[in-house]
Amino acid sequence: MSRGKPIKLGRAIGGAIDNLVSSVLTLPGLGHKPHQKRRHTKPGARPGIESHEEMHVQPSPQQAAIHVIEYDRQSVRRRDVTLDELPGFLAEPEPADISVRWINVDGLHAWVVQRFREAFGYHTLEAEDVLHVPQRPKVEREGGRLFIITRMTQLLEAQQLTSEQVSLFMHGKTVVTFQERAGDVWDPIRQRIDTAGTRLRGGGPDYLVYALLDAIVDHGFPILEHYGDQLETLERRILKKASPQELAHINAIKRELSLLRRVMWPMREMLAALSSEQTSEFNAATRMFLRDVHEHSVQIVDLVETFREMASGLTDLHMSVISNRMNEVMKVLTIIATLFIPITFLAGIYGMNFEHIPELHLRYAYPAFWVLCILITSGLLIYFWRKGWLGR
Amino acid sequence: MSRGKPIKLGRAIGGAIDNLVSSVLTLPGLGHKPHQKRRHTKPGARPGIESHEEMHVQPSPQQAAIHVIEYDRQSVRRRDVTLDELPGFLAEPEPADISVRWINVDGLHAWVVQRFREAFGYHTLEAEDVLHVPQRPKVEREGGRLFIITRMTQLLEAQQLTSEQVSLFMHGKTVVTFQERAGDVWDPIRQRIDTAGTRLRGGGPDYLVYALLDAIVDHGFPILEHYGDQLETLERRILKKASPQELAHINAIKRELSLLRRVMWPMREMLAALSSEQTSEFNAATRMFLRDVHEHSVQIVDLVETFREMASGLTDLHMSVISNRMNEVMKVLTIIATLFIPITFLAGIYGMNFEHIPELHLRYAYPAFWVLCILITSGLLIYFWRKGWLGR
Amino acid sequence: MSRGKPIKLGRAIGGAIDNLVSSVLTLPGLGHKPHQKRRHTKPGARPGIESHEEMHVQPSPQQAAIHVIEYDRQSVRRRDVTLDELPGFLAEPEPADISVRWINVDGLHAWVVQRFREAFGYHTLEAEDVLHVPQRPKVEREGGRLFIITRMTQLLEAQQLTSEQVSLFMHGKTVVTFQERAGDVWDPIRQRIDTAGTRLRGGGPDYLVYALLDAIVDHGFPILEHYGDQLETLERRILKKASPQELAHINAIKRELSLLRRVMWPMREMLAALSSEQTSEFNAATRMFLRDVHEHSVQIVDLVETFREMASGLTDLHMSVISNRMNEVMKVLTIIATLFIPITFLAGIYGMNFEHIPELHLRYAYPAFWVLCILITSGLLIYFWRKGWLGR
Amino acid sequence: MSRGKPIKLGRAIGGAIDNLVSSVLTLPGLGHKPHQKRRHTKPGARPGIESHEEMHVQPSPQQAAIHVIEYDRQSVRRRDVTLDELPGFLAEPEPADISVRWINVDGLHAWVVQRFREAFGYHTLEAEDVLHVPQRPKVEREGGRLFIITRMTQLLEAQQLTSEQVSLFMHGKTVVTFQERAGDVWDPIRQRIDTAGTRLRGGGPDYLVYALLDAIVDHGFPILEHYGDQLETLERRILKKASPQELAHINAIKRELSLLRRVMWPMREMLAALSSEQTSEFNAATRMFLRDVHEHSVQIVDLVETFREMASGLTDLHMSVISNRMNEVMKVLTIIATLFIPITFLAGIYGMNFEHIPELHLRYAYPAFWVLCILITSGLLIYFWRKGWLGR
Amino acid sequence: MSRGKPIKLGRAIGGAIDNLVSSVLTLPGLGHKPHQKRRHTKPGARPGIESHEEMHVQPSPQQAAIHVIEYDRQSVRRRDVTLDELPGFLAEPEPADISVRWINVDGLHAWVVQRFREAFGYHTLEAEDVLHVPQRPKVEREGGRLFIITRMTQLLEAQQLTSEQVSLFMHGKTVVTFQERAGDVWDPIRQRIDTAGTRLRGGGPDYLVYALLDAIVDHGFPILEHYGDQLETLERRILKKASPQELAHINAIKRELSLLRRVMWPMREMLAALSSEQTSEFNAATRMFLRDVHEHSVQIVDLVETFREMASGLTDLHMSVISNRMNEVMKVLTIIATLFIPITFLAGIYGMNFEHIPELHLRYAYPAFWVLCILITSGLLIYFWRKGWLGR
Repeated sequence: MSRGKPIKLGRAIGGAIDNLVSSVLTLPGLGHKPHQKRRHTKPGARPGIESHEEMHVQPSPQQAAIHVIEYDRQSVRRRDVTLDELPGFLAEPEPADISVRWINVDGLHAWVVQRFREAFGYHTLEAEDVLHVPQRPKVEREGGRLFIITRMTQLLEAQQLTSEQVSLFMHGKTVVTFQERAGDVWDPIRQRIDTAGTRLRGGGPDYLVYALLDAIVDHGFPILEHYGDQLETLERRILKKASPQELAHINAIKRELSLLRRVMWPMREMLAALSSEQTSEFNAATRMFLRDVHEHSVQIVDLVETFREMASGLTDLHMSVISNRMNEVMKVLTIIATLFIPITFLAGIYGMNFEHIPELHLRYAYPAFWVLCILITSGLLIYFWRKGWLGR
Repeated sequence: MSRGKPIKLGRAIGGAIDNLVSSVLTLPGLGHKPHQKRRHTKPGARPGIESHEEMHVQPSPQQAAIHVIEYDRQSVRRRDVTLDELPGFLAEPEPADISVRWINVDGLHAWVVQRFREAFGYHTLEAEDVLHVPQRPKVEREGGRLFIITRMTQLLEAQQLTSEQVSLFMHGKTVVTFQERAGDVWDPIRQRIDTAGTRLRGGGPDYLVYALLDAIVDHGFPILEHYGDQLETLERRILKKASPQELAHINAIKRELSLLRRVMWPMREMLAALSSEQTSEFNAATRMFLRDVHEHSVQIVDLVETFREMASGLTDLHMSVISNRMNEVMKVLTIIATLFIPITFLAGIYGMNFEHIPELHLRYAYPAFWVLCILITSGLLIYFWRKGWLGR
Repeated sequence: MSRGKPIKLGRAIGGAIDNLVSSVLTLPGLGHKPHQKRRHTKPGARPGIESHEEMHVQPSPQQAAIHVIEYDRQSVRRRDVTLDELPGFLAEPEPADISVRWINVDGLHAWVVQRFREAFGYHTLEAEDVLHVPQRPKVEREGGRLFIITRMTQLLEAQQLTSEQVSLFMHGKTVVTFQERAGDVWDPIRQRIDTAGTRLRGGGPDYLVYALLDAIVDHGFPILEHYGDQLETLERRILKKASPQELAHINAIKRELSLLRRVMWPMREMLAALSSEQTSEFNAATRMFLRDVHEHSVQIVDLVETFREMASGLTDLHMSVISNRMNEVMKVLTIIATLFIPITFLAGIYGMNFEHIPELHLRYAYPAFWVLCILITSGLLIYFWRKGWLGR
Repeated sequence: MSRGKPIKLGRAIGGAIDNLVSSVLTLPGLGHKPHQKRRHTKPGARPGIESHEEMHVQPSPQQAAIHVIEYDRQSVRRRDVTLDELPGFLAEPEPADISVRWINVDGLHAWVVQRFREAFGYHTLEAEDVLHVPQRPKVEREGGRLFIITRMTQLLEAQQLTSEQVSLFMHGKTVVTFQERAGDVWDPIRQRIDTAGTRLRGGGPDYLVYALLDAIVDHGFPILEHYGDQLETLERRILKKASPQELAHINAIKRELSLLRRVMWPMREMLAALSSEQTSEFNAATRMFLRDVHEHSVQIVDLVETFREMASGLTDLHMSVISNRMNEVMKVLTIIATLFIPITFLAGIYGMNFEHIPELHLRYAYPAFWVLCILITSGLLIYFWRKGWLGR
Repeated sequence: MSRGKPIKLGRAIGGAIDNLVSSVLTLPGLGHKPHQKRRHTKPGARPGIESHEEMHVQPSPQQAAIHVIEYDRQSVRRRDVTLDELPGFLAEPEPADISVRWINVDGLHAWVVQRFREAFGYHTLEAEDVLHVPQRPKVEREGGRLFIITRMTQLLEAQQLTSEQVSLFMHGKTVVTFQERAGDVWDPIRQRIDTAGTRLRGGGPDYLVYALLDAIVDHGFPILEHYGDQLETLERRILKKASPQELAHINAIKRELSLLRRVMWPMREMLAALSSEQTSEFNAATRMFLRDVHEHSVQIVDLVETFREMASGLTDLHMSVISNRMNEVMKVLTIIATLFIPITFLAGIYGMNFEHIPELHLRYAYPAFWVLCILITSGLLIYFWRKGWLGR
């Protein structure tokens, strides 16, 4: 409602109708692309990392940054490795005095991934999966190492949703994580590593992997609350004013929930596999924690489905509100038109120029005419009121 | 219909239309929040109960209350344990002279849960699941104890639905239950414990667990009847007057059924697992009773699905009623407009000021004009009647 | 159409619209309650038959009647057992000279069920399932006896659907059936028992159980034909006149099909279990007959699904017919309004009182005016006809 | 469009609206009964063929005809067996000099089926399944013979779909087929039998069974093409003119696809079972051919699902076309009404009889009035054009 | 919007409405046939390649072309085999000096397929599957050879989607591929064969098969992006102008996605089977690559489902936009009509010819009349503005 604003009535009639179309074209919800541009190689190209030409070119420091955290129960060492140092660093054996080494790579570049591949013997397809985003979340075991692909979704301050692929290798004491960009959901974990006495500091690399996955999955909850709030807001807005803008917004939410579902379903399967299998990577204690993560992923999938149903319900509500409003408009038109049509006809009658219309010469014909008009109008009003078209 | 009320016709026309929007904004059904605020920890925080800072602070008596019932076939002892007594009480061994000890905790507080954890050796994630509501219903066996999470739904007097998480531990002779709030569905069970000679008094802790679950599941039936009644009422109201308010109400019911389904599906699975597995916790006789609870949960899931379908059917009905009403409005407008439009034109003709209109000077032109009007109107009425627009 | 009836035109216009609402409120289809009131005990009450207080009170003869048929290949004995005779009758051993004894109980009463329980050792939960209707159809084996719960649906003469629970026990030579009310679908079976030489007379109690189930399942076919006929009738009525009444009727049918499906799905599973398992209750020959019943239940489930789809299609058809009819109304209004609006304006022009309107003084202005009106109207008619709004 | 026909404008207005309703009542698509009348016995009747009274009455030659083809690699013998000869024929042993004997029975009669039952030892329920149509497609093995029930659908010349049950027995060298009526899809197979050197002539009875099933399944493809063509035609007709007739036609197609699906799903399962099981009836080579038939049945099920989705899409399209057309009608009404309403008011002003209206006496008032009308109308037209209501 | 074009207002009114229908009949999306004409043999015909009469007629060179590539790590030989040379070529043993021989056949002709069948012993049904397109994607093992049917979809420059069946045999060192037409997605693979040192050159025939399947599956991604772009464009166009054309376009996309799904589901299953089974055809390294292809096919199926949901959302949006636009049109009509109807009635009053209308003779009656009109109109405008019909 724009009651607060000064209004120009003359413009208002047409303007009301113009506003709609233009506003719809700048929908906030439509800013999210419904499908992301993929970095897939050309169909038919060579499989594996060899298809990446930049494999042989060292990237600039802006393109990739490597951060290493080494810790055990007693001590923590942080270290940033420059791209020039990288080959040397990777050639070193795992330090004997720590229990976990976490190498985090921000930024995907074929040259960097190839260095890791040479040092740790990753498969060429694993290296390609790291580079070619988006991949479906999955877990693979090959040659004694664990390879996990997952997807990290965050809600930035501007309520904007970002999503990036996280690839994770675990072998020996080492955990390697590749992210698409700097900035992640793992700062609380870094703080827990810095805090002596936490279970994380005492745990092995498998516990670190659990903690990283846990942080990623739990970030789904604030995102879903965000959508829940949006759906509630939309319900309220639809009941007030149902324009196609609201429906487009619902559609955008549906689409994003659909994308979220596409990410969460395979993550759920992946976590179910990780937490239930009798494998050597995770010890029994950590597997129990993984089961907890798995339950959270199940809850998220449940919520996504519930929100999708709610969005469908809002679509129906939207239709109903529009129909109802049209009904109201029609009713006003019908009432006013039918009130005046008969008496306008009557006025036309006595505007005729026939020579012999006896009523025209009666003394009280004019007041009688008015009385007749009032009678007709009242009769119609009573009729409408009895139909329930008035005043309910 | 407001026939009983005195009406002001003048206001009624506009008022009819104003009422709609305002009333919709105070929908009773929308009072239920579509998704509950979760008490989940911040993503990335430490797992387990250690992330709760209030773990080290003894709560006020308002925040948590502990009630103990100890019984066997011969005797019943009830006892309220204050928070100060709690550590001492939990350190005592299970009394030898009774067969079942039921410790019920109203109010979730990390300090209390931590005391139980220390005394009975619960896992840190189990303790966290107790505190972080809502969790998905599940059953776990760990270290010789049974851990069940379920959800207790009640219909308060004001027809308001409440729902709280119930966490249940069973080990040795002891059954521990944690509820979010005081007030539960177990008063009939307490009465049965007080009554000598019931099967409950003669049974072990497994039979008590069965009885608690049975009471929770059976409370689903009155809740579903409540929804069933609401849907029937809505059907009747929609046929009388279909405003967006009804559709919003249907949506609210759908949403709550959707939430109920999200709770009941895992409970059904949980009960299927409990009743079918060959485990040591439940003896064969109790397992047969559990199968009965399982069947009730299956019936509830069936009913939820049926009600969801009914709600979808009501959405269609709503649309149809609105369309039909608009149809009626249009028909009235069309009939009245088309009856008067031709004869109004005719009256306009003889109101023209042409010098030479021969009819104007005829003696009986005016009555003839009236006859013509009546003929035209009658012809149109007959036409409409044959189209079935009248009087069916 | 009401062409045969004398009509009062004056009333017709308003009446047409009044009829709708009132007629809808007395829908026949809405007479069926969408969910039956359940006889479930209060949540939290004692499980088993002990929760029934009337267990200790012998019912009146109107509340329960017991009919016994004993037969073998050679002879048939029928006998009605009064409630006073019941304990004595049940204490007798199975007669040695017959092969099958069928005890049928009409009317559910805790006292009667408790007598059978004492005599034959039924489990307390089985006894409760007999009394607490409706239960989900199921089959159970416990202590050498077979316990089947199923649901008997009948179409009475007044096309009214009734449904009652049938509980069936088989042990030794004895088959016990409990029905909610007198009156069942088993009269043809009683006739077959009376006829010497039928396979039923030569078979054991397992064959009798098969025959009883077969009669119950096969009664689904006439019921489904009834719904099929109703859907066809509805399709025809919707094409003629689509009022919310029809949609409410479709909804009622959907709801009943939904209830039927809820009954038939578990019956199908139950029959699949009975016919496929290698159990001692049924011999191979009878199991082959049970497979036949199972196939019929599969066909019924198929038909229910098909009818549900048809009902959904009718909902769409209904919407389309309403939209189309509104379209027609709008077209008539538009045609008549647009034909007269321009010429009414023209008539208004020459009714003006300007001093200097040259046309007013022309000799043939009036006929020319008429010609102009006819030309304008014809032009518009041609335009409408070319748009396809006329005479297709 | 009826541009070619001479038209009577006077009739056209009303006629356009009358046509609709009447034409809808004679829908071709509605000629197919949505559910076939079943020949099931009365519920509760004796199972097996004994419930058929006509079992003891030899039918007339019009009611049943028996054709026998006996062949091996070298020779073919065809023979028609009259009903009188039947008992004798069936009592003969299988001829030693041929490898396959195919007995085809057109017309279902209990007397005929009973003769086969006596001769070949069919089970009474198998005989009943032959007679009680429709049965669900299935395959059974009993006493060394194979018993298959399937459904043969044909598209007759008049584009009419017929469907009949085919029951097939295979034992020893003999294949017996029962059809409901004369006329089938097997003429090409009879030709292949007549042609020396085909694989069919060299194969055993299992290969004949394969060939018969193959012909039945492959007949699904032309039928589905027929529906595909109809759906395409409907899409085109809906875009031109969307009346409820089209929607009723879509509904009829949906219903028939639904029936086809009900037939094809169990056939698919049946063929999967036949082609995968290691049974003695079919040798490995024939089983490979059966796998081919199975794949065709999978393709047909796929197509049925696709067509059902297409039909749903057409329902939406239909709604949209109707809405759009109503939109057009409304736009024309709105444009013409709003163009003339203001200037008609203006004409009314200067038709008033006030004594003192200065404009009435101006010299060029009348032409100025016309100019004003044209200006108003042009302004409105420009407004409408900018709204995009014109000329897009 | 056509603001740039010169417009003829007179034509515009009618033209706006004429455009719609005609444009819809030439929908680009409808150019794709919803179901392809199948080359299936007549139902009942002989199975296997023998039913093809052209089997005995050598085709023209335009009908079929054979290209052979033979390679190992060291060398590559390309060779075109004419139809005359074909029998001789196929009779030669596999060359000893190469590791892989790829025979690609463009164009399906029974004579050619029969030559391969004679040379390599293919089964007659396999040969028929090659010729009778479309078949469902599948994989078969028979007599030591691998037989794969798959479907190659391409997006041509004109954004036109083509689809053809690819049949692939692998036995010994030989890979045979049959395509329906010349032109495929395998040019990058041919380039990789030409490039020394690629993994393809070093691999065996199983690696070639992987590469061929990989190229086919990966071509799904650009096709899906194409549909994604179309859906986004459609969303924008629907928000601007929602005509049935857009809905027909959505339907066409839905239909194509439905076809794509029908192709991709069995391909996914086929690839899952190929990549997981422990068979001799593929060595462990290649199977890992196949797993990668399988993952891509899973992603494609995911995307297809997401796009189908998006298309459904657009259908709702379309409906809403149409309803909303009609709402706008109705509002404009209602506002203008109700503004003028009362004052037109007033003008009619003072155009009446009663002898005694006192107002007519008042000095300032005429200006007072204008003031009254303005007051009434303003009152209505204020009323409409408060209803929110203006200027929001």
